[in-house]
Amino acid sequence: MYNAMLALGYAAESDFSGPIRLSGDVKGASVLVLGAGLAGMTAAYELQKAGYKVQILEYNERPGGRNWSLYGGDSYTEIGGVTQKVEFAKGLYFNPGPWRIPHVHRGILHYCKVLNVPLESFCQINYNAYVHSERAFGGKPRRFREVNADFNGHVAELLAKAASQEKLKDAVSPDEKAVLLDALRNWGVLDRNFQYRKSDDVSAVRGYDVSPNGGLRPLPVNSEPMPFKQLLDSRFWASIRQGQIIEHQSQVFQPVGGMGMIGKAFGNALSKIIKYNCQVTKIAQDGSGVSVSYMQRGDTSQQYTAKADWCVCTIPASVLSQIPLTTGAPLRNAINSLSYEAAFKVGLEFKRRFWEEDEAIYGGITYTDLPISNISYPSTGYHSAGGGVLLGGYIFGNQPRAFEFSALSARDQVKAALAQGQKIHPQYSREFKSGVGVSWHRVPWTLGCSGSWTEDNRKKNYDNMCAIDGRLVLAGEHCSRLPAWQEGAVLSALDAITRLHKRVVGRT
Amino acid sequence: MYNAMLALGYAAESDFSGPIRLSGDVKGASVLVLGAGLAGMTAAYELQKAGYKVQILEYNERPGGRNWSLYGGDSYTEIGGVTQKVEFAKGLYFNPGPWRIPHVHRGILHYCKVLNVPLESFCQINYNAYVHSERAFGGKPRRFREVNADFNGHVAELLAKAASQEKLKDAVSPDEKAVLLDALRNWGVLDRNFQYRKSDDVSAVRGYDVSPNGGLRPLPVNSEPMPFKQLLDSRFWASIRQGQIIEHQSQVFQPVGGMGMIGKAFGNALSKIIKYNCQVTKIAQDGSGVSVSYMQRGDTSQQYTAKADWCVCTIPASVLSQIPLTTGAPLRNAINSLSYEAAFKVGLEFKRRFWEEDEAIYGGITYTDLPISNISYPSTGYHSAGGGVLLGGYIFGNQPRAFEFSALSARDQVKAALAQGQKIHPQYSREFKSGVGVSWHRVPWTLGCSGSWTEDNRKKNYDNMCAIDGRLVLAGEHCSRLPAWQEGAVLSALDAITRLHKRVVGRT
Repeated sequence: MYNAMLALGYAAESDFSGPIRLSGDVKGASVLVLGAGLAGMTAAYELQKAGYKVQILEYNERPGGRNWSLYGGDSYTEIGGVTQKVEFAKGLYFNPGPWRIPHVHRGILHYCKVLNVPLESFCQINYNAYVHSERAFGGKPRRFREVNADFNGHVAELLAKAASQEKLKDAVSPDEKAVLLDALRNWGVLDRNFQYRKSDDVSAVRGYDVSPNGGLRPLPVNSEPMPFKQLLDSRFWASIRQGQIIEHQSQVFQPVGGMGMIGKAFGNALSKIIKYNCQVTKIAQDGSGVSVSYMQRGDTSQQYTAKADWCVCTIPASVLSQIPLTTGAPLRNAINSLSYEAAFKVGLEFKRRFWEEDEAIYGGITYTDLPISNISYPSTGYHSAGGGVLLGGYIFGNQPRAFEFSALSARDQVKAALAQGQKIHPQYSREFKSGVGVSWHRVPWTLGCSGSWTEDNRKKNYDNMCAIDGRLVLAGEHCSRLPAWQEGAVLSALDAITRLHKRVVGRT
Repeated sequence: MYNAMLALGYAAESDFSGPIRLSGDVKGASVLVLGAGLAGMTAAYELQKAGYKVQILEYNERPGGRNWSLYGGDSYTEIGGVTQKVEFAKGLYFNPGPWRIPHVHRGILHYCKVLNVPLESFCQINYNAYVHSERAFGGKPRRFREVNADFNGHVAELLAKAASQEKLKDAVSPDEKAVLLDALRNWGVLDRNFQYRKSDDVSAVRGYDVSPNGGLRPLPVNSEPMPFKQLLDSRFWASIRQGQIIEHQSQVFQPVGGMGMIGKAFGNALSKIIKYNCQVTKIAQDGSGVSVSYMQRGDTSQQYTAKADWCVCTIPASVLSQIPLTTGAPLRNAINSLSYEAAFKVGLEFKRRFWEEDEAIYGGITYTDLPISNISYPSTGYHSAGGGVLLGGYIFGNQPRAFEFSALSARDQVKAALAQGQKIHPQYSREFKSGVGVSWHRVPWTLGCSGSWTEDNRKKNYDNMCAIDGRLVLAGEHCSRLPAWQEGAVLSALDAITRLHKRVVGRT
């Protein structure tokens, strides 16, 4: 049925075209998978189902890799030796890595279904969250809804005016003009004269000063739209653009209980074949197989060796580039060519869900031009009494501000995020309870958040990064065209093992 | 704190300004509440807390009124005598009445919190759901995302062109022009030359023909935007307007397990004071109190009487106008003046969640110009194996098509909804399991969906409808400026009892 829908053009949103089928005799072949992140576990899960003997070596003491949630009682040690102990109350968590699953990411959604990982809505766009700049509207945050409605309204008014004054004649036929005006009035909530101005209808979209009410309470009071010039100068329109990309469009999901629930479910399904706390020190291969040397973390006195016919390596290129590896120049060069994104996230626990109670903000994201860039509210546990954890700052990409934040001690990171967030939520200082910061370029097992492909580098090195090299194939988000997304890891693994399998069963 | 936020102008989105406080000596006063819907139960809950002796008479055998979910095993009998038995599988439900709680509806959200009714996200706007018309694009549904992106893009391109050609000179200063162009390019995803055309960036917003993928899978293929003329003619822009009103803006909620969970929770909290199956036949009052006559439903042989010092009557005006009632002319005229909206909803159970599996539609709404008007997908139980219930049609307002549907037998309603929906989801015929239709003007205890105030009638009669008449005050969505919304019922009740209480404690 899924393929029937594809043929109808209904399901083109994903490259995932249903569960993988690896048929044919694998002739007792064995595969060593390096890394129990989503790529490694997807590969192992499917290879095992196809009849391979599979083993996974994992650096951490847990499955999931960047699919990871921190809970009260957990601790995390960064490069530099700082250990943070997470103090969150029971039931609260923070996702240092991925935090949302777009509905178009059919691969990872398939595994959530197969592994019985319950999903709930992740609120990406919240019209009642804020847009904020210290340089606009006197530093007072504005609701997303006001910015969105006023931008649409003013754009519609300007275009309607141009159309009415016959200024679009070369672009719009007289027939079209009538429908265009109708559409602009409807969409932009313009009045009879095609103007965007304070009215019942406009307040029904941008919000009221006093809302419609019950019984004999005071009459509603309409709100005043922002002047277009002020809105343009604020650059707030750049924030309303954020929800537009397909990955941010509703429906978006998160696993109930934290993103790390996917890694845990995979880990449970593969518990017999994952070896934890293994630090790979060398990857060798020849015509007959692969041989991987590793140490038990914390014990450098002894080297172990694991052998197999084939190897699926999901170690990030940032780490892999530092490990002796038998490979041809093309793959070697590809691994060395890839830089990794810095990214910083801080989780802040508060005693009270003041964003819900005081401000009616349930999930979603506030955008600010402060270094923290975002504040995101939990899309779960609405109305619960036990406080909550905000994403108090999330800086992605190789922005200087990501490094500025990362350069601070964990304690100062939390402090800085609090001081900045306080400008938007004055309740911060009174309600703060605990915090934790994760700087991805200091995470020992990734040395960065995700692979950072330039267009040029992708042309030169991407195919080589993905190609099978002897008995070795790489997988992970860095081997996909969906960088940083978990879907990239899953789809990359499925593609890598499909090619490997063809080789094993002798069809390529 | 909430009031502090109000003072900052942060919380103006709701007329609900925190829990009600009815202080003062009620001197043993008693109140009879008619109707255990949300208005009646809100009133009773707070009056009881304030020290009043409260009793509720309810027509149905359950609490909630229009706050109501149908589950497998339930049955429902309309005027005309047709009884439908609901055959849904365990865990599935259908909300014939209200189905969503906007985040701005702080009153009802407060009671969800107080009554421990867990909430989950209701997906209102789903970019991956469809917009459909038999007269546009050959009757082929388009994804909401395509319509939205293309509308924005074309509008931005047209306005940018006008600006570049100096056609907006009287409206936009040269300074503004530069920012405007920047904003239009960003927001509309225009290219370097301010054109909206097929590109990586545009596909990242409107979707791809082949999506970015993993490993060495085929390269992504960009999609072609719809021509603006075709999009304008389709009138699909009217559908993207639907999510814009404040009540439809994210975050929107539904109670876990069905909207009726609120009524049930209220009912449990008030179990000692609600009398079910009571059909009110007469409401009399004099200077000393009220006396209400009622029958046990199904037994016309005996009349009972309930007496109290005061009465809060939440019986819909449509029904109340038929009951003998001691009241002055202003209230009598108001009751008689109000007509009620027809509305029709049909719930369709399917064996398989094909909308999720085949089409990646998780919750949200498809808009069509077919008589069914909407198809809405369940915002809960994602990925569950036991099938699901779609809202297969929802026609609101006094549209002729609502009556056309209502005029059919329940069996034919379901048939018609299936035949129409099949044009959008070809899986309907194969996957259908059971269905139930509710025509609100045939619901015996409301005779309509909600009060339908014209502007003119509201001027003449609204204040009289809400004013205390002797020892009687009305409450319900019909006594609010939020018609049809549960919030209207809650806020109306709070206002009515606040005024009543002031009278009792002698402050008015």
